[in-house]
Amino acid sequence: MNFYNKLKEDCGVFGVFGHKDAAKLTYFGLYALQHRGQESAGIVSSTEREINEHKGMGLVPEIFDENILEKLRGHISVGHVRYSTTGSSVAKNIQPFVVNYEGKTYAIAHNGNLVNAGNIRRALEKKGSIFQTTMDTEVILHLLAHSMRKGLSEAIVNVVSQIKGAYSCVLMTDDTIIAFRDPNGFRPLSLGLLDNAYTVASETCAFDLIEAQYIRDIEPGEILIIDKNGLKSIRPFPRHKHSFCIFELIYFARPDSTVFGLDVYSVRKALGGKLAREYSIDADFAMPFPDSGNYAAIGFCQKSGIPLEMGVIRNHYVGRTFIDPVYSMRGFNVKVKLNPVKHILNQKKVIIVEDSIIRGTTSKMRVKALREAGAWNIHMVVSCPPTKHPCFYGIDFPTEDELIASGKSVDEIKNYIGLDSLSYLSLDGMVEATGLPKNDFCLACFNGKYPVNPELGISKSYLET
Amino acid sequence: MNFYNKLKEDCGVFGVFGHKDAAKLTYFGLYALQHRGQESAGIVSSTEREINEHKGMGLVPEIFDENILEKLRGHISVGHVRYSTTGSSVAKNIQPFVVNYEGKTYAIAHNGNLVNAGNIRRALEKKGSIFQTTMDTEVILHLLAHSMRKGLSEAIVNVVSQIKGAYSCVLMTDDTIIAFRDPNGFRPLSLGLLDNAYTVASETCAFDLIEAQYIRDIEPGEILIIDKNGLKSIRPFPRHKHSFCIFELIYFARPDSTVFGLDVYSVRKALGGKLAREYSIDADFAMPFPDSGNYAAIGFCQKSGIPLEMGVIRNHYVGRTFIDPVYSMRGFNVKVKLNPVKHILNQKKVIIVEDSIIRGTTSKMRVKALREAGAWNIHMVVSCPPTKHPCFYGIDFPTEDELIASGKSVDEIKNYIGLDSLSYLSLDGMVEATGLPKNDFCLACFNGKYPVNPELGISKSYLET
Amino acid sequence: MNFYNKLKEDCGVFGVFGHKDAAKLTYFGLYALQHRGQESAGIVSSTEREINEHKGMGLVPEIFDENILEKLRGHISVGHVRYSTTGSSVAKNIQPFVVNYEGKTYAIAHNGNLVNAGNIRRALEKKGSIFQTTMDTEVILHLLAHSMRKGLSEAIVNVVSQIKGAYSCVLMTDDTIIAFRDPNGFRPLSLGLLDNAYTVASETCAFDLIEAQYIRDIEPGEILIIDKNGLKSIRPFPRHKHSFCIFELIYFARPDSTVFGLDVYSVRKALGGKLAREYSIDADFAMPFPDSGNYAAIGFCQKSGIPLEMGVIRNHYVGRTFIDPVYSMRGFNVKVKLNPVKHILNQKKVIIVEDSIIRGTTSKMRVKALREAGAWNIHMVVSCPPTKHPCFYGIDFPTEDELIASGKSVDEIKNYIGLDSLSYLSLDGMVEATGLPKNDFCLACFNGKYPVNPELGISKSYLET
Amino acid sequence: MNFYNKLKEDCGVFGVFGHKDAAKLTYFGLYALQHRGQESAGIVSSTEREINEHKGMGLVPEIFDENILEKLRGHISVGHVRYSTTGSSVAKNIQPFVVNYEGKTYAIAHNGNLVNAGNIRRALEKKGSIFQTTMDTEVILHLLAHSMRKGLSEAIVNVVSQIKGAYSCVLMTDDTIIAFRDPNGFRPLSLGLLDNAYTVASETCAFDLIEAQYIRDIEPGEILIIDKNGLKSIRPFPRHKHSFCIFELIYFARPDSTVFGLDVYSVRKALGGKLAREYSIDADFAMPFPDSGNYAAIGFCQKSGIPLEMGVIRNHYVGRTFIDPVYSMRGFNVKVKLNPVKHILNQKKVIIVEDSIIRGTTSKMRVKALREAGAWNIHMVVSCPPTKHPCFYGIDFPTEDELIASGKSVDEIKNYIGLDSLSYLSLDGMVEATGLPKNDFCLACFNGKYPVNPELGISKSYLET
Repeated sequence: MNFYNKLKEDCGVFGVFGHKDAAKLTYFGLYALQHRGQESAGIVSSTEREINEHKGMGLVPEIFDENILEKLRGHISVGHVRYSTTGSSVAKNIQPFVVNYEGKTYAIAHNGNLVNAGNIRRALEKKGSIFQTTMDTEVILHLLAHSMRKGLSEAIVNVVSQIKGAYSCVLMTDDTIIAFRDPNGFRPLSLGLLDNAYTVASETCAFDLIEAQYIRDIEPGEILIIDKNGLKSIRPFPRHKHSFCIFELIYFARPDSTVFGLDVYSVRKALGGKLAREYSIDADFAMPFPDSGNYAAIGFCQKSGIPLEMGVIRNHYVGRTFIDPVYSMRGFNVKVKLNPVKHILNQKKVIIVEDSIIRGTTSKMRVKALREAGAWNIHMVVSCPPTKHPCFYGIDFPTEDELIASGKSVDEIKNYIGLDSLSYLSLDGMVEATGLPKNDFCLACFNGKYPVNPELGISKSYLET
Repeated sequence: MNFYNKLKEDCGVFGVFGHKDAAKLTYFGLYALQHRGQESAGIVSSTEREINEHKGMGLVPEIFDENILEKLRGHISVGHVRYSTTGSSVAKNIQPFVVNYEGKTYAIAHNGNLVNAGNIRRALEKKGSIFQTTMDTEVILHLLAHSMRKGLSEAIVNVVSQIKGAYSCVLMTDDTIIAFRDPNGFRPLSLGLLDNAYTVASETCAFDLIEAQYIRDIEPGEILIIDKNGLKSIRPFPRHKHSFCIFELIYFARPDSTVFGLDVYSVRKALGGKLAREYSIDADFAMPFPDSGNYAAIGFCQKSGIPLEMGVIRNHYVGRTFIDPVYSMRGFNVKVKLNPVKHILNQKKVIIVEDSIIRGTTSKMRVKALREAGAWNIHMVVSCPPTKHPCFYGIDFPTEDELIASGKSVDEIKNYIGLDSLSYLSLDGMVEATGLPKNDFCLACFNGKYPVNPELGISKSYLET
Repeated sequence: MNFYNKLKEDCGVFGVFGHKDAAKLTYFGLYALQHRGQESAGIVSSTEREINEHKGMGLVPEIFDENILEKLRGHISVGHVRYSTTGSSVAKNIQPFVVNYEGKTYAIAHNGNLVNAGNIRRALEKKGSIFQTTMDTEVILHLLAHSMRKGLSEAIVNVVSQIKGAYSCVLMTDDTIIAFRDPNGFRPLSLGLLDNAYTVASETCAFDLIEAQYIRDIEPGEILIIDKNGLKSIRPFPRHKHSFCIFELIYFARPDSTVFGLDVYSVRKALGGKLAREYSIDADFAMPFPDSGNYAAIGFCQKSGIPLEMGVIRNHYVGRTFIDPVYSMRGFNVKVKLNPVKHILNQKKVIIVEDSIIRGTTSKMRVKALREAGAWNIHMVVSCPPTKHPCFYGIDFPTEDELIASGKSVDEIKNYIGLDSLSYLSLDGMVEATGLPKNDFCLACFNGKYPVNPELGISKSYLET
Repeated sequence: MNFYNKLKEDCGVFGVFGHKDAAKLTYFGLYALQHRGQESAGIVSSTEREINEHKGMGLVPEIFDENILEKLRGHISVGHVRYSTTGSSVAKNIQPFVVNYEGKTYAIAHNGNLVNAGNIRRALEKKGSIFQTTMDTEVILHLLAHSMRKGLSEAIVNVVSQIKGAYSCVLMTDDTIIAFRDPNGFRPLSLGLLDNAYTVASETCAFDLIEAQYIRDIEPGEILIIDKNGLKSIRPFPRHKHSFCIFELIYFARPDSTVFGLDVYSVRKALGGKLAREYSIDADFAMPFPDSGNYAAIGFCQKSGIPLEMGVIRNHYVGRTFIDPVYSMRGFNVKVKLNPVKHILNQKKVIIVEDSIIRGTTSKMRVKALREAGAWNIHMVVSCPPTKHPCFYGIDFPTEDELIASGKSVDEIKNYIGLDSLSYLSLDGMVEATGLPKNDFCLACFNGKYPVNPELGISKSYLET
């Protein structure tokens, strides 16, 4: 749940059909999904006659207030939170993406990443289409416009037969919500029920907050159309091998969510328990860096019998803090967030339970701060294998050059971070902790086996080619 | 220059090619054109490698600051000020309108109104094009994308052969500025020179502020391409009758501008002089409502020998003032802007020199305030004929129902406003004051003769049909 | 009315007793007095049980909105606009100044300047009093606290017997408004009536806006107590020579106000008329720099028969404009506000009618801009004599070094500004234009005769001594 | 560390003498002390010639930025964070409180509450002193001004001999920092060293962040003068019984601080351990409500052998959230902050380890949310005895009426909150966990024995009497 220092995922999506407070529910839904994108958010609503939208940069409560939500009238709504790309034109990339076509309005919220967006775009431009944004999401709506002759259902089927990669989408028209998910099922997407209204969300924690009931997942490859006639499910693809993103379980999803049918808190505890099975380390206590490794640490301590302590205190008032350059060199940007507790750490042998290591830079600074606070031995156990390969399916992983495990051995990483020992969970141990077969997961960031061919290398930069 | 209460024109446009401070010059240019649009503004700049843009709601100095202008790097720039339409999606209608097409960026700033945008849009949608906005301007870029096979020059020629109505446009690509103006020449568009840089502006007052030299007008029907090779002029149309908007001279343009080859200040004085010739009224003094009738009033007083006084004082600190509903009924919203000077008005016979009357509501409130301040007789002379017909070429005139002269006789208007007498300038007197032949002007708002057929009735609402 | 470039006066004050919308009326009153202070404002109101206040930096409509005014409950209110001094502690110097003493609250708004505040303060500090601010106004409340044994009326009499200099004050207690004015009557202060409520204001233009009726001035040396029993007037001083600030008539007050019993618009016209009598200059036309010289110019033209033109256009959208240092050298900061009209000025002989010259720097830049616009001869007539001496009674005049007429002859000033000729109105001509005897005015800034001895040199810096 | 729902303490104070970045260090110091006051903050700095100050409402990083800190020049600085009182005049109560007296500036930051401020104020007002604020802190400066004849040291001695109650203060003059603490030592105050600069802070966690070294506490009854000559300590009082606030250890202070010579983290673990000794409860797991009970929960689990789980997830993005009234009834304001983890709670027997119960309302809502998430049995253990009496020494405890333990038995509280059982730690158990003798603490909120007589009942409302 701590995304400040490591990875950025693209998005969280949310939709409601059939509730008089659709936009307000979407506001709370996005609030619960805030961890999936903290830089911009938007809500689009429909009364079937009138479409209203509001988008902005920042956190959900900074963007919306009561007045704005009052104006987002309608019983249908779709929302999106996003980690937006940098650059001069950020504002126009905020989702949901909205277009007009033949007098109707279409709004789409997309979580994931298309691997063939560049090819499709070039083909569309040859036919005279012009583009507003550099988002892969925009091609979905262009394809839809080119297919609308035969009606919305067939148009969607036509679109999904052309796009490849990861997509968990919520599309809103004036009178319909369509949720659809790629056949691999890379990203989660769930269906809930509140009173007589249907709701769709990236994670079930959004249902908990609005007191909706979790029904089931939108299945991989499913197109679910929600309108005044109820639910209609289309499955245009033959049954397909799943490729659930295991990083959702390790790191991204909130611990109180159910994702891919698994409860995230328990999976994380099990990952910590597996670490305790695989490694035996002499220590005074184990500790997480709150809050990312909390649950693996609980599992690790319960299995190993090593006491749990909170060796660092998280500062809850951290916002957009000004850090003077002079002081940032002295590790202020680390200590402002997590303050080591000297009297706990002093002269102690400590095990840090981490969920993952990406660049290693934050870990290095934190370990240094622990040493300065008096820790004598510092071991680290990590609840997944070394992360060596970039993601083309929606996680903003750094390039291979920046992934520390891509170029360095475990021993070199240990030395870089400044540890006494470093122990990664095995790939099999990780998969076993989930209880699902290995085949059900995308493990590409660990083993380099990409379930869908990323045609253009790093697909998100497709416009530069 | 007082646009708060009467008419809203769509836009002012500005462009620079070949100056290292292109965006800063555009900022000052838009500043000088602020009277042509006060609700939003935008600037797009190009270094030929990188496009930067910034847009916002509000006045030019509220939208841009030094930091923002520093980031708008490049030697090419285009800008726009706009009276934007109301509704939920205002922000996306702020110009310049920017799109990507085959790896290149196109930004357009448009002053005027297309009368066949609806037909073009429907045809494009049939081919699968989707639209971001409800602006007629967007169809220009769609047509351009469909014509780019043969190169930019031919594409522009192809576009202007399809669009009809009023357009004074500045189009920017990564490395070129193209200024083009409809064959009727409804709206002004001028060319200036600053050091070695060319600049294009709606009015010459923008050149004065940046100390550029006014060269000539972009001619009606001309396409002027400005790039590193200099100027290239294309005139794809046969020579065409002009239809200069005479309201630019009466009301819109700044008095220090040269428009259609005429100096606006002198034309307005001449209009006031014509009024003095056509009517003889006994009065203690004449006065304008500052600042709209100032120049006609000076001309009127010089020709008639009647003394000029400033019977109302304009409040310079008027901004977005909160007006309590309770007090607004008592005429506060009028007096907050213009305070009657009691000791000047008391027991006097007064002539108000007005440039035009649109709805009559503001005049009515102001005349009431003069009466309360003690004026005994109030006459009004207006420096144009009764305004009876809506405009389809870029002025946001009210509908015919709202135009007071459309449904009421001069005598009825006089009574509605509460005047002792009301005298309009004759159509011929108005035209004579300009020194140009009647044929050169669009006089549709006075005589209902529309130079270009407005196909769809009120063209700006083409999306609702 | 144009205070951007020349002088800053300290304050405008306003008070209401007995109206349910007291704070709203005060808001409009301050709005009308905005020209007397543009950098901060405040309102304090009382329900007799509860005191509410709100203050801020900026213009009145920027500081207050509907919500804030709703919270300023009560039927008694006092307000203040101010040109605040620079420095780190500006915010705490915003008036009305509020203190608590023995369970009661006192709020004071002060226009003017005390010349013996330093001596009084030092004496109070010796007795153990501590001060929150560096304002002379604060000593009034300290003196009041030390005199309260015998009741409010006597305390005020005791205070005014100790303070010297210029003060037009409105003091509010929980249940009373007290307006008092120094025996010389340097600054104006008027009494108005709205329904059954009394109101006090620096200028009568504030009454016009709220539709209150002007009753009379608070007389020099008068203490006027307004409470639920009505008005009670105390005159503790023997009758005293008046010292009305003639600069209020020349420059500060709004032309639609009545000040010292004189209507400002007519006095300014008379000043222009006197100029036409004293000087005969050959010219094509005369013009003001709007809006400061407007009324003297009208008077000058009517008496001389020289035509009036508006040779420069005032930009109404000027706010806090960013001016790039590069461009400010080229006179942008002048032209952004006032744009010369080339076709009017070109090859013409021009007379500028100015109300006053303080530093001469702004005039110099403006004259330069007129020359660049093509004016051939530029004469200037000024509606007062040379301003040679600083003011110790509430006008923020520059020091003698900065007053151009203090160190330079008229001929030297003419050359500095770049004029063909420069003509000041005579002292007698100026006084005659008012219709009052010379004895009634403070003319110290012209003749150096100070009606009240400024003990400490420049009294406003008394804290530095 | 979670202050949103329970208690508000008045303040945190911080001072620096002798560092070129004094204000920046103060900024970070206040940042670390943010938990002691979240509604306003201020910093005052001195170069010995010039005093600069900046204050505002909100969190420390919202109030200060780099530009502001740059302007707070000087090598001496004092800062304050505050939970400010509500009302219309909040802004002027922000500390440090600053006054001018005989040409010098005095700034004071105060943590605590004086019990005889009302009496002193009435006496001072009789002598003619006027007050700016309703803060007890202001009387300290008035007393100081009345004693300055004999120099600063004696003046401070004179002041502390007159004031009674709780005060840990940092006073800054132009060239000196004086830290002083009441003889009972109710609130903490520590001395640190950074390079050659001395620093004073409410808690040692502020030293950790700026990497200063903790030297010792300012002792109860000590006056410590820090100037260019170094440290000078004055102890004007005879040795006195200590009355350390035990609630600092239970709840207020940060767990990584050392307070009263005790490390807070270890004391909290010991309190949890004592609970495990005093009560034996059958449960599946124990959990805190993060983050207030975290450390007691760790101690409780380690001693009892009951597993620790995180049954609720804290939402880190909580800011000023809009909560629709409709939804707030359904417990949204609780769940937005803490989301129950259904799969952990479902069908479980749970022990909640709490640090304290004040009103019981938040606990009641949280327990209800746990029940809805499926918990079968819910027990609560509290790491202190029932809190029955208000605090007159600086903690904003509710009145006795609002303290649930004041009017209800333990059984009634259990029923109100909806628990299966409720167990408070014994008074002796609590004291034993600290390792200090009972005599060293103020235990008034538990046993009603007030070490200093609160003369006026509830002293903070002294102005109303």
